[in-house]
Amino acid sequence: MTEARLIIADSEHDADMLYVAGIFVPDAFIAVEMNSEWHGLFSPLEVDRARKDSNFDHIHLDALFRLSAENAGRSGLAAVAAAFLEERKLKKIEVPPHFPFGYAEQLKSWGFEVRASEGAFFPERAVKTELEIRHLAYAEKLTRQSMMQAENYLAACSVGSDGILRDSQSGKKVKAADVRRAIETFLIGNGAMPAHTIVACGKEGADPHNVGSGFIRAHQPIIIDIFPRVLSTGYWGDMTRTYVKGKATPEVRKLYNTVREGQDIGLSMVQAGIDGSAVHQAITTHFDRQGYPTKMIRGRQTGFFHGTGHGVGLQIHEAPRISVKSDILKAGQVVTVEPGLYYPGLGGVRIEDMVVVRGGGCDNLTNHKRRLEID
Amino acid sequence: MTEARLIIADSEHDADMLYVAGIFVPDAFIAVEMNSEWHGLFSPLEVDRARKDSNFDHIHLDALFRLSAENAGRSGLAAVAAAFLEERKLKKIEVPPHFPFGYAEQLKSWGFEVRASEGAFFPERAVKTELEIRHLAYAEKLTRQSMMQAENYLAACSVGSDGILRDSQSGKKVKAADVRRAIETFLIGNGAMPAHTIVACGKEGADPHNVGSGFIRAHQPIIIDIFPRVLSTGYWGDMTRTYVKGKATPEVRKLYNTVREGQDIGLSMVQAGIDGSAVHQAITTHFDRQGYPTKMIRGRQTGFFHGTGHGVGLQIHEAPRISVKSDILKAGQVVTVEPGLYYPGLGGVRIEDMVVVRGGGCDNLTNHKRRLEID
Repeated sequence: MTEARLIIADSEHDADMLYVAGIFVPDAFIAVEMNSEWHGLFSPLEVDRARKDSNFDHIHLDALFRLSAENAGRSGLAAVAAAFLEERKLKKIEVPPHFPFGYAEQLKSWGFEVRASEGAFFPERAVKTELEIRHLAYAEKLTRQSMMQAENYLAACSVGSDGILRDSQSGKKVKAADVRRAIETFLIGNGAMPAHTIVACGKEGADPHNVGSGFIRAHQPIIIDIFPRVLSTGYWGDMTRTYVKGKATPEVRKLYNTVREGQDIGLSMVQAGIDGSAVHQAITTHFDRQGYPTKMIRGRQTGFFHGTGHGVGLQIHEAPRISVKSDILKAGQVVTVEPGLYYPGLGGVRIEDMVVVRGGGCDNLTNHKRRLEID
Repeated sequence: MTEARLIIADSEHDADMLYVAGIFVPDAFIAVEMNSEWHGLFSPLEVDRARKDSNFDHIHLDALFRLSAENAGRSGLAAVAAAFLEERKLKKIEVPPHFPFGYAEQLKSWGFEVRASEGAFFPERAVKTELEIRHLAYAEKLTRQSMMQAENYLAACSVGSDGILRDSQSGKKVKAADVRRAIETFLIGNGAMPAHTIVACGKEGADPHNVGSGFIRAHQPIIIDIFPRVLSTGYWGDMTRTYVKGKATPEVRKLYNTVREGQDIGLSMVQAGIDGSAVHQAITTHFDRQGYPTKMIRGRQTGFFHGTGHGVGLQIHEAPRISVKSDILKAGQVVTVEPGLYYPGLGGVRIEDMVVVRGGGCDNLTNHKRRLEID
C-alpha cells in the first residue's frame, strides 16, 4: 500500500509546514505528500493566494472534502484530511513527531494506520540551499545592524554619579527596556520581528535565560542577544555581544578574553565532517585551563553550562547541535558558535556568531567586530 | 487507578502551558496534574525562576528524572515525564488534543494509557477571571493607543496629485509599511509585540487575509487591524478600524455605515446566555436587507464571509466563536465583534471591538470612536 505523508498545522509557527508551503498561513491547514508531490488543501479565503505564491504541486479547495467528511458524520481538519486520503485510497500515513495526538487518534479510529517519523520529518531542512543561506545572511545582516543601534545608544549615554547610565536625550536613568527599544524599533522598521531580545546587565547576565529588566550600569558586563525573524521569508538571525560601558575591571576583561578565545577555537574548528561534540569539548577544555571550571556552586550552575551552538533556519533552534552530544556537521548547515561563561557576582559573558559550515572551514555571516568596552 | 494530566510544551506558544505555569519558558518542559495539584519539572537553568514566579504547586528539578530515564534506556522529554509518573505509580494520563503524537506513542510503548481530552484541555480558559479581564483591558488600551498613532500619522499626510499619500516629514509616497511602522514602533516601545498588523488599502482590503503592502491612496477604504500581545502577561488585544483619507465616495460611505450598523446590532445582542449564531445571523440578515449579500462572484467570495467574532485571551483566537455554529456565550468571556463587507472593486470595510460578556449586555474594552474620514 502506498504511504502518504501528512501535516496539519499553520505555517506561522510550524517550520515544517512553512518549508513545504513557502507562504505564511495563520490558521491550520492540510498538506499531503503522495508520489513525491505535495498537495495543499486551502479554505476559500486562502486558496487564491496559495495558487499564486505557494510551493505546492497541487492546490485543492478544502470545502469539497469538508462536504464528504460531513456526509460521513465527521468534522474538523482531521476529517477533511481523511476524506482527501480516502478518495485516493491512501490508508497508511506518516506524520511529524509533533503532529497533534488528538488528530492522530481520530484518523486511527477511522481505520488509518498512522505513525510518527523516526527523527525529523524533513532531515534535509538542516542543510540549507544557497537561497536559504542568502535569506539567513539577510536576517543576520539586519541583526548586526540592530546590534549597532545598541552600540550607538550605549555610546551616547552618560554615566551618573550612581554608576547608572543616563539617556542622552531625556537624561533619565537607562533600563534594559531602553536599549531593547533602540534595537527592536530598528528591526520592526525593517521588516523583522524581534523575540525576547536579551539585554542583561551585571548579575542579571549571570543567568543566561534572564532577558533583563534592571538598570544598565557602567563597568559591568551587558549581554545583548538578538534573534529576530524576517517577516517576508521566515528565516531567523541570531547574534550576541557583551559590552561594558566605560572601563572593564581586570576580572571582567579576563573573562571576556577567555570567551573570545573559546569562540575563536570554535570558529577555527567548525567545518564539514567534524563532530560538534569535539568543538564543544575543545572550548570547555580551554575554559578549564584558564581557571573557569563548569560546576555547581551553592546549588547554582556556574561556568559554561549550555551548548556551544545550534542550527538556525525557519526555526531559531533546530538541528544540528554543537554540544556534549555527538553530531557530525555537514556542508551547508548554518549554526551558531556562542560560548559563554557565567559566575554570580561577576556576571556573564557570551559572544555569538552565525556561520555556514563549509568543506575545510566556515563562512561567518555575522562578521561584526568583537569589542568589550564602549566609551 | 488515579489519572494524571500531562502537558509537554513551551509556554511561549502553548497557551494551555502558560495558563498553568504563569511564566514564559522558551523551551518545552513538563507539567503534571495529580490530586488537583500541578507539578512543574524544570531544567537547572529555569528552576530558580520557576520557584520564584510560577503558579505551580510543586517544582522539581528535571535532571533527577532524566537520570532514572537514562537508567531505563530512554531519552527525551517523554522519558523524563515517564520517570516522574512511574515513581508515583501513575499509568493513566490525559493530555491536550494538540499533545505531540510522537511523545504519546513513546508513553504508550512504555505501558502508559494515554488519551486526549474531549474538547478543550482547560474549558475554563474561555471564561476570564477579573484579573484576566484587567490584563485584556490593558492589552486593548495599548492597541487603541497604537490605532491613534495610525490616525495621527494619516492625518499628518498630504495627498499627492496622483492620489497617493505623502509622508509629512520625508515627503515620500506612503506605503502600508509606513503606517504599520507608526503603529508597531509604539507597541514595541510599550512592551507589546505586534503580529502581522493589517494595513490594507483599496483592493488589498477586499481580501481580509491580505496584510497589505501597497501605496496608501486618498478616497479609498484603509482597513487597519491591530492585534498585539503584551509581553509581560501574554494576553492579546484586537481591534480594527477602517478609514478614508479625505472624502469617501457615496458607495464607500454606505458600505461603512452598513458595517457600523451591523456592529451595533452585534454589540447590542452580546450578553450571557445568547447563542453566538443568533448574533451572527442578525448581522447577516441586516447586510442582506441593505443590499449586501454574501455570495461567490466570478469564483471569489464577496460580502460577509467570515465569522462575527472569536474569544481572546492567552491566544488571539480561542473559544468561544460567534459564527454560523451554535455557541452559547457565558458571562466573563471576552470576545470580538467584527463584522465586515468585502467587494472586489469597492474594497473592504471591517470594524472590530473587543468586549466582555456580562449578564444583560457587554462591556466594551475598545471604547474608541468609529469615524470613517480623516482630513
